[in-house]
Amino acid sequence: MKKAALFAVGDELLAGIGREGNCAWLAGKLSEIGWEVVVIQVLPDEVEAIVSDLEQWVGKVSLIVLSGGLGPTHDDLTREAIAKLLGSPLMLREDLYTPILARYSGPIRGAVEMSKGKQAMIPEGAEGIYNPLGSALAFKANHKGTHIFALPGVPREFKAIAEESLLPFLSRGENVREVIKVVGWPESTLKDKVKGLLDFEGVKLSILPSPNCVTLSLWGKPEVVTGAVDYVQSLIPEDILPQGASSLAEAVLIEAEKKHKTVSFAESCTGGLLGAALTEVPGASRIFLGEVVCYSNNSKKEILNVPEEIIIKYGAVSCQCARAMALGAKALFGSSFALSVTGIAGPDGGTAEKPVGTVCFAIATPKGVETFERKFFGDRSNIRSWAVAFGLEKLWRAIRREYGGGC
Amino acid sequence: MKKAALFAVGDELLAGIGREGNCAWLAGKLSEIGWEVVVIQVLPDEVEAIVSDLEQWVGKVSLIVLSGGLGPTHDDLTREAIAKLLGSPLMLREDLYTPILARYSGPIRGAVEMSKGKQAMIPEGAEGIYNPLGSALAFKANHKGTHIFALPGVPREFKAIAEESLLPFLSRGENVREVIKVVGWPESTLKDKVKGLLDFEGVKLSILPSPNCVTLSLWGKPEVVTGAVDYVQSLIPEDILPQGASSLAEAVLIEAEKKHKTVSFAESCTGGLLGAALTEVPGASRIFLGEVVCYSNNSKKEILNVPEEIIIKYGAVSCQCARAMALGAKALFGSSFALSVTGIAGPDGGTAEKPVGTVCFAIATPKGVETFERKFFGDRSNIRSWAVAFGLEKLWRAIRREYGGGC
Repeated sequence: MKKAALFAVGDELLAGIGREGNCAWLAGKLSEIGWEVVVIQVLPDEVEAIVSDLEQWVGKVSLIVLSGGLGPTHDDLTREAIAKLLGSPLMLREDLYTPILARYSGPIRGAVEMSKGKQAMIPEGAEGIYNPLGSALAFKANHKGTHIFALPGVPREFKAIAEESLLPFLSRGENVREVIKVVGWPESTLKDKVKGLLDFEGVKLSILPSPNCVTLSLWGKPEVVTGAVDYVQSLIPEDILPQGASSLAEAVLIEAEKKHKTVSFAESCTGGLLGAALTEVPGASRIFLGEVVCYSNNSKKEILNVPEEIIIKYGAVSCQCARAMALGAKALFGSSFALSVTGIAGPDGGTAEKPVGTVCFAIATPKGVETFERKFFGDRSNIRSWAVAFGLEKLWRAIRREYGGGC
Repeated sequence: MKKAALFAVGDELLAGIGREGNCAWLAGKLSEIGWEVVVIQVLPDEVEAIVSDLEQWVGKVSLIVLSGGLGPTHDDLTREAIAKLLGSPLMLREDLYTPILARYSGPIRGAVEMSKGKQAMIPEGAEGIYNPLGSALAFKANHKGTHIFALPGVPREFKAIAEESLLPFLSRGENVREVIKVVGWPESTLKDKVKGLLDFEGVKLSILPSPNCVTLSLWGKPEVVTGAVDYVQSLIPEDILPQGASSLAEAVLIEAEKKHKTVSFAESCTGGLLGAALTEVPGASRIFLGEVVCYSNNSKKEILNVPEEIIIKYGAVSCQCARAMALGAKALFGSSFALSVTGIAGPDGGTAEKPVGTVCFAIATPKGVETFERKFFGDRSNIRSWAVAFGLEKLWRAIRREYGGGC
């Protein structure tokens, strides 16, 4: 059975300073190739605690991965803990450290060289792993049938080493995981809609809601999972993000590119999040021309040509203002589509008539303008996330509809 | 000893779909009031696994908190696991569910009512906790001297209940945690600079690097921690974010507000992230007028008045172009300061002369323009994060310098 246990080492994670991300990322990668992660655990910077937790899993899982605790300071103790677990002394591996040291120059080189009494030490019998992006030597060892990997906690180093020196050497498990992203459904009604999934024997279903997008994860034998995916697709074909799109922003990019269309935004309460979401996707520049964030009424008038009467009569948070903003952005950037968002993200600024969470949207398309008004709940961050996801969903549907389906 | 063990329940977290955040957030809150979190662990949706892991901690810590697994579906098993741990049957608590049900109407009400066979059940002897934002009843119990709280996994529900029904009832521990955010220092050289911190007896130091900002966390008896904080502040007074600022964006807001100044941005490769970072802070509208994201050369010319000759002669990724963009944004929005960012975030678009990671910045101030060129490493997301943090640091320093120090 291809089972893995993942550990993040660091007092700062137990103190809530920073949030574990390396193990979560690796869990996703392992699960894609049919491995089952049985535990993700944050451990303190203490040799005894690390050893005693690892001992529980050695011999029971095929793979243990540790993230962090390989740095140069007194509280970096992962290598000491693994040496103790293996019953092997730490050895200075200058031979493996030379190519790492060679990448540094100037004052940093001195600091890296001085750190080798910690960072170039690995347990005797362990195999060193080159770190292409940082100064800590990674390593792997085998103990009672379990492969143990110790990787640095800096996310880009962790990922680079996992991708180069860990994942390619794992054989694929029998199971597969397929992920379906459904937009526009509340979790509770979607669960009812897809309850037929429980009839696919041997398929493990997980449901994870996020703002305006529910992720269905199906895990099991390939043929049964394929059947289950087909079943969901036949039930709600209009509400599933296209294959290969891991986010609404990616779906917008895929759809606009397919139709040779361009996009621009006008944002107010979301303050740049829409643009940030779309440009997170490599290649966004092929369809995204730009955006204006108008955080003041003045900039709405002067840059986007929103008529002053609209702001006076309906207010800046209104479908009328959203409409003018979308048309303004479409004209300014000369894009095929423009999406605008204006709302009250809170905590202040709400009124009885327009409470915190009220958000208005408009989509200017080649054929006209659509507007929407919604009320979202939660705190500022939650309201903004929902607004971004809702706006991108409507834009995605508009691009698809406007030119699709034989119109 | 005020020790806590935190658990997130959910197969989807073990599959890397989504990333644990509730326990990390709660760990931060607990640590602020002097509690020590000894473990954060992700558990599968399996009764036996949950029970056996909880059994390891019951009686050893004062507090156990579980996040998730209280929903209406077959794989929500936290309440079943705790009932088994306590040796108590689950009881339908219609009395406690009525006020929750009363908040729903329409088709959703039917779904919530039907879910009460799961969501209104709590172990006999446990105390129900009202959920103000969702439909799952939370609860707490006491077992062998350990308080066990089971809260829903939806982040806003988890936080609301923790803030209303958990944190206010915990007594404060003897230790305190102070956090210092240092900007502009690489972790390795900063560690050397502040190594005198190791002389403060009884102070536990954790160091967490993030893009362009290193967080020092000091934990121990109040009087020693205060001394340690003063020591760091006297060493590098210019590089510490002001008290109360948890991010560079917040520091910019605090500084600009103090000086009655306004800010605008012109972004290219960061695509809206700068605006998103600043407007994440409540009250950003008091100093932020808006921004233009110019993802095409055309929009740089037409909206920000970047002269075409500059783009032809120096390219869009150049200090010259950044300078023109900052001046364009300052004029367009009429702000006191304007920050611009233009660079190559990758994965494509790099050249031998300007490789991926090259980013140019300009800050237009009331007294002139400063420009910077930097080369950042890592993937697209890392380069963009560094660019945002570097730009905000320089803006923060510019606002402070321009009007501070008696000038």
